[in-house]
Amino acid sequence: MSGPLFDRVAFIGIGLIGSSLARVMRRDSLAGHIVACARTQATLDTALALGLADTASTSVAEAVKGADLVVIASPMSTYRAIAAAMAPALMPGAIVTDVGSVKGSAVADVTPLLPAGVHFVPGHPVAGTEHSGPEAGFDTLFRGRWCILTPEAATDAGAVERVAELWRRAGAMIEVMDWRHHDMVLAITSHLPHLIAYNIVGTVADLEQETQREVIKFAASGFRDFTRIAASDPVMWRDVFLTNREAVLQMLQRFTEDLSRLQRAIRRGEADELQDLFTRTRAVRRGIIDAGQA
Amino acid sequence: MSGPLFDRVAFIGIGLIGSSLARVMRRDSLAGHIVACARTQATLDTALALGLADTASTSVAEAVKGADLVVIASPMSTYRAIAAAMAPALMPGAIVTDVGSVKGSAVADVTPLLPAGVHFVPGHPVAGTEHSGPEAGFDTLFRGRWCILTPEAATDAGAVERVAELWRRAGAMIEVMDWRHHDMVLAITSHLPHLIAYNIVGTVADLEQETQREVIKFAASGFRDFTRIAASDPVMWRDVFLTNREAVLQMLQRFTEDLSRLQRAIRRGEADELQDLFTRTRAVRRGIIDAGQA
Repeated sequence: MSGPLFDRVAFIGIGLIGSSLARVMRRDSLAGHIVACARTQATLDTALALGLADTASTSVAEAVKGADLVVIASPMSTYRAIAAAMAPALMPGAIVTDVGSVKGSAVADVTPLLPAGVHFVPGHPVAGTEHSGPEAGFDTLFRGRWCILTPEAATDAGAVERVAELWRRAGAMIEVMDWRHHDMVLAITSHLPHLIAYNIVGTVADLEQETQREVIKFAASGFRDFTRIAASDPVMWRDVFLTNREAVLQMLQRFTEDLSRLQRAIRRGEADELQDLFTRTRAVRRGIIDAGQA
Repeated sequence: MSGPLFDRVAFIGIGLIGSSLARVMRRDSLAGHIVACARTQATLDTALALGLADTASTSVAEAVKGADLVVIASPMSTYRAIAAAMAPALMPGAIVTDVGSVKGSAVADVTPLLPAGVHFVPGHPVAGTEHSGPEAGFDTLFRGRWCILTPEAATDAGAVERVAELWRRAGAMIEVMDWRHHDMVLAITSHLPHLIAYNIVGTVADLEQETQREVIKFAASGFRDFTRIAASDPVMWRDVFLTNREAVLQMLQRFTEDLSRLQRAIRRGEADELQDLFTRTRAVRRGIIDAGQA
């Protein structure tokens, strides 16, 4: 590890993902100076107390001043306003990246607002937990996980490489792809599973009090895993579904069709159809174990 | 720990659950003698090699001879034939219990076939993993988990207590309830979550090869947890859905209604409705953590 990768890094948002990346930068001295920016002073006080940043500001324009790297790490719905606020204050040659789960929306909201000479490298570290806030981060969150970058073809290759190198230092593996493709793949691997988990936990939340108490009591039998996923940050996920709407609805349609067939098989007592499906799904699990992502 | 609880215990089925309970009995010397019974000699050889049983037989009638405790630990669809095979060989005063996930079906298939003087205490340890077979068991599987017993009102209280004591020795907490209630509660906490997990993993299994490869690659983003659940034993789960059909279909109906509403909220961009649901689901997770079942 030879010296900092960036002189001055601004984090716009310092929650689970932002603070985890800041921890990596602190650990390996990858930034000369870190500025944290958040909506509330309370969050900034926490970030400073945790030693995640050297300075802090609730002003985006203030925070990005002089930064050679800006990391947007806040919910998708905030991107447009953040881009507008930072645009006049950005240094020529600065790199702007993000960590959001929907890349089409990031490109649409940020790219048009950035001044010429500033490089936008959209990114998505495929990692997380159900916890949120600056206290929830940890410096090994990205280790062995993928970080997907979705730059436009015209984006400066040197800027892309510098962002890639940062994620490699965090222990991540890099994949570069088109944002359209990213949003379709993530709709299946991430957005639909979260939607389903939120839905089933919501179904339980609507049950009468007594039954709900029992469901919680006997949660160990499968339900528990869904509640963990459905405990993820509400605002972040609201934004994911609204910004990746088309891909999510398309995958949901497939899921619903398949569920109808499964329902029919149960109603009609089609034992072979059920066993066949459950055997095929076991093979998918094996693929994930073999890919080292279990 | 003062001497064995049972002189001779017969396990009919020695997979994940059966072998875990056998391990507890070995560890704490709770049985004078353990007989394992399975359909194949290969399974029995494994069980013997692991030291889970003193003797083994592929014959149910042979295995239960002289046993004061018989534990049925095989898929629900096998119960009727097992009960018919053991009935003539059971010792008067013997206790028969099981570990199946559906209790109505256990009662319907076993109770009518047992001779007078034999006590049936249906049981369901609410614990498990996605692995199966005698090698998959471990003696702490039931620690801190619930074991639900669903005896009829007329069942000998002493027999119920002896089964309860066995599970307490395994580290489980005991809950006694009506089998109808059990099957309804488990349909929500366990059967529906498994059905949904099987379905979403099935949807992915049907995707074109290339996309499926990418889904496996980026599984860490949520999908992974579903694949673990959907890797559970296919035959056992086929039987669960077929034997608890009514309760599962009823819960599935609620789930589908809720999912339609969620789909509509996404399509119409109803941000508040989404955020509200995702906030309520987070509270359910907190309930599970507070209940010590996380």
